[in-house]
Amino acid sequence: MKKIESRDNKWVKRLNGLKIKKNRDKEGVFVAEGLRFIKEVPADWAVEAYAVSETFAAENDLSRYEKKAEMLCLPDTLFASVCDTENPQGILAVCKKLEWDEGAAFAKEHPFFLLAEELNDPGNLGTVIRTADACGADAVFLSKGSVDLYNPKVLRSTMGSLFHVPVFQNVDLNEISKKLKANDIPLYAAHLKGDRLPYDLNLKDSCAFIIGNEARGLSEKAADLCDQWVKIPMPGQAESLNASIAAGVLMYEVVRQRLER
Amino acid sequence: MKKIESRDNKWVKRLNGLKIKKNRDKEGVFVAEGLRFIKEVPADWAVEAYAVSETFAAENDLSRYEKKAEMLCLPDTLFASVCDTENPQGILAVCKKLEWDEGAAFAKEHPFFLLAEELNDPGNLGTVIRTADACGADAVFLSKGSVDLYNPKVLRSTMGSLFHVPVFQNVDLNEISKKLKANDIPLYAAHLKGDRLPYDLNLKDSCAFIIGNEARGLSEKAADLCDQWVKIPMPGQAESLNASIAAGVLMYEVVRQRLER
Repeated sequence: MKKIESRDNKWVKRLNGLKIKKNRDKEGVFVAEGLRFIKEVPADWAVEAYAVSETFAAENDLSRYEKKAEMLCLPDTLFASVCDTENPQGILAVCKKLEWDEGAAFAKEHPFFLLAEELNDPGNLGTVIRTADACGADAVFLSKGSVDLYNPKVLRSTMGSLFHVPVFQNVDLNEISKKLKANDIPLYAAHLKGDRLPYDLNLKDSCAFIIGNEARGLSEKAADLCDQWVKIPMPGQAESLNASIAAGVLMYEVVRQRLER
Repeated sequence: MKKIESRDNKWVKRLNGLKIKKNRDKEGVFVAEGLRFIKEVPADWAVEAYAVSETFAAENDLSRYEKKAEMLCLPDTLFASVCDTENPQGILAVCKKLEWDEGAAFAKEHPFFLLAEELNDPGNLGTVIRTADACGADAVFLSKGSVDLYNPKVLRSTMGSLFHVPVFQNVDLNEISKKLKANDIPLYAAHLKGDRLPYDLNLKDSCAFIIGNEARGLSEKAADLCDQWVKIPMPGQAESLNASIAAGVLMYEVVRQRLER
């Protein structure tokens, strides 16, 4: 275990730097905070280092972590200063970013994908990924201009699901729609002008859904790429749904239909 | 229009005070921020006063607001200081709290209710209320210990739905479950130990769902009040759903079944 005392230590500077997307991109790593989240990191995942607070080190057995990667120990206040959460649990891990195989996702028997255009809210994105995982979706594709998957708030709201479901970032929606077409996977959009109910689609076969930005909805350009606009019924007075709820309703219709398979 | 220049003005002090639940409770009012939200305030709703920034006053026609209530105008920085949002739009309204009639909710033909136990996340609560509105739910009941409905972040995430769907706060779950029983309304819980799928319930008739706290799930006490535990299927690897997604899946099953009515 390596004791770190100074704010000027290069690890402290690095951890602070990783709060910024540019640095995460350059280094190809991200920071996983909290015990619950770290327990979700698969055993074969590359972890570069762990850092703990002095209090956490005194109260926990760290041997399972020390076997895997370098262990850093920081005074509690210094540890808190490198964390994103306000009340950190005392442990974090510097993990290699995930690299998923797009070909493998397309090679599934009845691919079930979710696409999102410029999702901006970290909590929404994390929730969408968690829900996609729960539903057994085969991949999530995020357009350019979406919030970063490795943003600490996104990571937290995924509750570890980013280790289960492949997520592809900076996706060109034109390109992906061509691949969907080439693979006979229909692309459905949740759209206020939609005229088909989700319950009338055949979702036992391959399917992909695209949801739009929280405030602006789906762009016309993206809507034009779709094979079908879907209308999520709203018998009440609300004019629209939260983006993660719309995604949840559509993905759960796939689950419902496939239960019968 | 009343010009306010000083931080020590009693309106400025009052607006700042209303950021705190205790003061909102004492005065029976809450602050609605932003033009989009204020446009959702029904015409017959009691508004005590509006406040605008000088820039907003210079760029907008305020006559429709001035007809309805006192209009205060604050320098931009002073206006921003009384707001909860980081980039305020320049208008807020001090509104009377909502008082809904519980008897009217129970008198609906096939009541459809959502109950929540100690929901803590403002975004989740707002989203749940917005979704309940979209689904045409007849009421939302929040247990003691939930985040305040009039918390500014909750208000924003409701997107105005709190004016459409009756929300009852500080509800005693024991009491409400007795009322449900007396009215033959079955209470279903989304529960990891549930054994019935939502798709197998008869939701065309009266129904009520209860969802638990984000971190702890439903308490045993609350789970014991239910007539049936429902299992939301999760064919993927996630162990649980976000509370607002779970609520959305259940409420949308009501919508799906009732479409056929």
